[in-house]
Amino acid sequence: MAQDSATTQPAPVTRQLARYLVESNGRDLPADVIHEASRGLLNWLGCALGAASHDTVAIAVRSFAPFFGPAQAQVLGRPERADILHAALINGISSHVLDYDDTHFRAVHPSAPVLPAVLALAEWRRFSGAQLVHAYVLGVEAEIRIGLSVFPEHYDRGWHITGTAGVFGAAAATSKLLGLDEEKTAWALGIAATQSSGLREMFGSMCKSFHPGHAAQNGLGAALLAEQGFTSSDRALEAPRGFGHVLSSRFDPETITQGLGGSYELLRNMYKPYACGLVMHAVIDACLQLRREHSLTAERIATIQATVSPLVTELTAKPAPGTGLEGKFSVYHALAAAIIHGAAGEAQFSTEAVRDPRAIVLREQVSIVVEPTMRKLEGKVRIELRDGTVLERHVEHALGTLEHPMSDADLEDKFRALVQDTLPPGRVAELIDACWNVFQLEDAGVVARLAASTP
Amino acid sequence: MAQDSATTQPAPVTRQLARYLVESNGRDLPADVIHEASRGLLNWLGCALGAASHDTVAIAVRSFAPFFGPAQAQVLGRPERADILHAALINGISSHVLDYDDTHFRAVHPSAPVLPAVLALAEWRRFSGAQLVHAYVLGVEAEIRIGLSVFPEHYDRGWHITGTAGVFGAAAATSKLLGLDEEKTAWALGIAATQSSGLREMFGSMCKSFHPGHAAQNGLGAALLAEQGFTSSDRALEAPRGFGHVLSSRFDPETITQGLGGSYELLRNMYKPYACGLVMHAVIDACLQLRREHSLTAERIATIQATVSPLVTELTAKPAPGTGLEGKFSVYHALAAAIIHGAAGEAQFSTEAVRDPRAIVLREQVSIVVEPTMRKLEGKVRIELRDGTVLERHVEHALGTLEHPMSDADLEDKFRALVQDTLPPGRVAELIDACWNVFQLEDAGVVARLAASTP
Repeated sequence: MAQDSATTQPAPVTRQLARYLVESNGRDLPADVIHEASRGLLNWLGCALGAASHDTVAIAVRSFAPFFGPAQAQVLGRPERADILHAALINGISSHVLDYDDTHFRAVHPSAPVLPAVLALAEWRRFSGAQLVHAYVLGVEAEIRIGLSVFPEHYDRGWHITGTAGVFGAAAATSKLLGLDEEKTAWALGIAATQSSGLREMFGSMCKSFHPGHAAQNGLGAALLAEQGFTSSDRALEAPRGFGHVLSSRFDPETITQGLGGSYELLRNMYKPYACGLVMHAVIDACLQLRREHSLTAERIATIQATVSPLVTELTAKPAPGTGLEGKFSVYHALAAAIIHGAAGEAQFSTEAVRDPRAIVLREQVSIVVEPTMRKLEGKVRIELRDGTVLERHVEHALGTLEHPMSDADLEDKFRALVQDTLPPGRVAELIDACWNVFQLEDAGVVARLAASTP
Repeated sequence: MAQDSATTQPAPVTRQLARYLVESNGRDLPADVIHEASRGLLNWLGCALGAASHDTVAIAVRSFAPFFGPAQAQVLGRPERADILHAALINGISSHVLDYDDTHFRAVHPSAPVLPAVLALAEWRRFSGAQLVHAYVLGVEAEIRIGLSVFPEHYDRGWHITGTAGVFGAAAATSKLLGLDEEKTAWALGIAATQSSGLREMFGSMCKSFHPGHAAQNGLGAALLAEQGFTSSDRALEAPRGFGHVLSSRFDPETITQGLGGSYELLRNMYKPYACGLVMHAVIDACLQLRREHSLTAERIATIQATVSPLVTELTAKPAPGTGLEGKFSVYHALAAAIIHGAAGEAQFSTEAVRDPRAIVLREQVSIVVEPTMRKLEGKVRIELRDGTVLERHVEHALGTLEHPMSDADLEDKFRALVQDTLPPGRVAELIDACWNVFQLEDAGVVARLAASTP
């Protein structure tokens, strides 16, 4: 039953969600969920480490370092340690700076608001890897369900749902770690609700990645306040002046509670193989496959024709990008880089790579055909070689979709590429191991401490 | 021109407001505005000090003390010092716990989100009293104008405007103190916009006073980020996916910019003489006046009949309150206490005062007549004495309204009553002096340091 009116008596969904969070037992987590949590952790950690020296992160650290409390938690990929609230903030920012983190198949970047809060708290209070995984799974469950209860109207209105729903994820996950009871968990969700914020107007500025950081910090703060008895509404989600009705024109409370515990939203999480917009991924896939199978080099190619959905030209039609960031919005550059480097990671979208003369020449050979019937993550490529040979490839589901997920090895490769400038090689292998075995770790803080950079 | 549609090209109001904040010169502040700033400071400080030991404040301190950074700023009325962000948060909470702080004549509690941010920053970076006053005046100007640009639709939707507009006030004021240029001030307003939050669903819980604290902390953080170059939208107020259109069904950008600098919203600020809802103030006034003029005591009184606007019975119709908080929502108790004590401050709304047998007897002699034509802050009282004498008083404008403002002496009395249990008497006088002379202080931090409690 969808509920559009603030006058209908609402179901006590906040309490129901709180009860589920309290009663959920980590021993009941299915093996595939635990494995997906390792994959999510590895992918998230790579993104955060890969962005650790980015301007956005450096400025945030510079701004807040004078206010850091005791050195309780690691700022990932950097020498600094901070109190857990600032660690959650900064690590939340670095998670999303590259826009390379995970995406739930319908909405929200699930890990960026949740894992920074959970990892910082686990490091400080010495929770086990199994506790961290359980909290992470539950945080994602809460944030996705709450996000979908108002999606897409809420997003269409202008809210950045990764921030607005993310704060609930962080609050739910850290409430679980702290062992709060049902009433206090409901309060934590309420304290989260009253901090829910983040505007899509910020896209294109540093504030976009501030949103998951702010959500992580505030969700963690909500659980810490509730733990000490700071009261809130216990129906913050469904009340007429609560989250659902105030921040959206449509609110469906059943999305939050129906079938809780019977399935896990984390299993519908997707990882990006390429460091650019999802809509280009299918044609990048096609180029990489043809390159591999035919040992292609740029010199052998006469033309590249990509057939794509209209979204691709709407979002990524920049024919002559000048910077790394512009390169991420140029399907021309993405395909040229894929052929030249056999990859489309962060390095291929650096300003240096975008200004590489080989890339400048090759992207002039790329042409785009828009095909309105094509799905968002579908694409076709037709490459004509200088010797007249024509190679074609149709990719129905890009790598990284639920239909064609990245393999564990793909995720390791992505991680290694992201962290190569941040961590020494020995540490990289240790950290990959720690992620795969996180559920067995006695002290989950190991993951954070291995992710320190030595100055 | 009101602007309802997100498709109309909006005026660059964020930039216009930022430019005003940058160009405003403290030497141009009129004397009455400077004096009102002293009054506002004194009133705010009394409220914060009076609530310093309240549960809400104690729990917030206990929750966040493990994360406090360096001892940069005073937590008012308590022994703790904290980093400026936590000081702003805690002092913002204590400002509003008693619901006894100032109210702009149309909307928003102006000082609670602004002064905690300004005072903490001034204490840490050693700004002068004149700089503090100027920043306070500008912060209030920004927050009230932004609040009114979406009022009342935004409030009616369920937003607690003291939080949602307050964050802009804190950001504007601290941007001024930090001397940010126009672009960075616009960014600070943008970083504030994307943190704007606070739901009316929280009324009745500790989260209500959390809102101005959160606004103070986040607005200050916004200015600190912008100072270091953290980018944001520079049209966060007016953009289609910005504050005005996302958080309200109506947004009138001209309210923000029209006549900027020609008038000061701080001059339309009101102070509460009584520690309860505004709607009861006129009849409390009437009782206090009659008591004073006729040396009334409870024993002499047969009946008290109050004639009030319908709002009074809607909001404060509790005939037999059992706790201090319930007493604040009982016009019966308020009038009884006014007669018994000749006052209606915090002490008269303690649980002890509410359970005082004299009050229990006298409030049974109170009756209420609703008069629909009466204005919100108007009221009449008719007291019949046991000897048959009838005394009547009609108060058209309650004490504390713009038409009948509290005098400086009234504000001092209110301050003294609020802080008597927190500060030693000598310090009270010093602090009152510091408030009246704040514009002349070389180091505004004196105000904060005088407001420490010695453990």
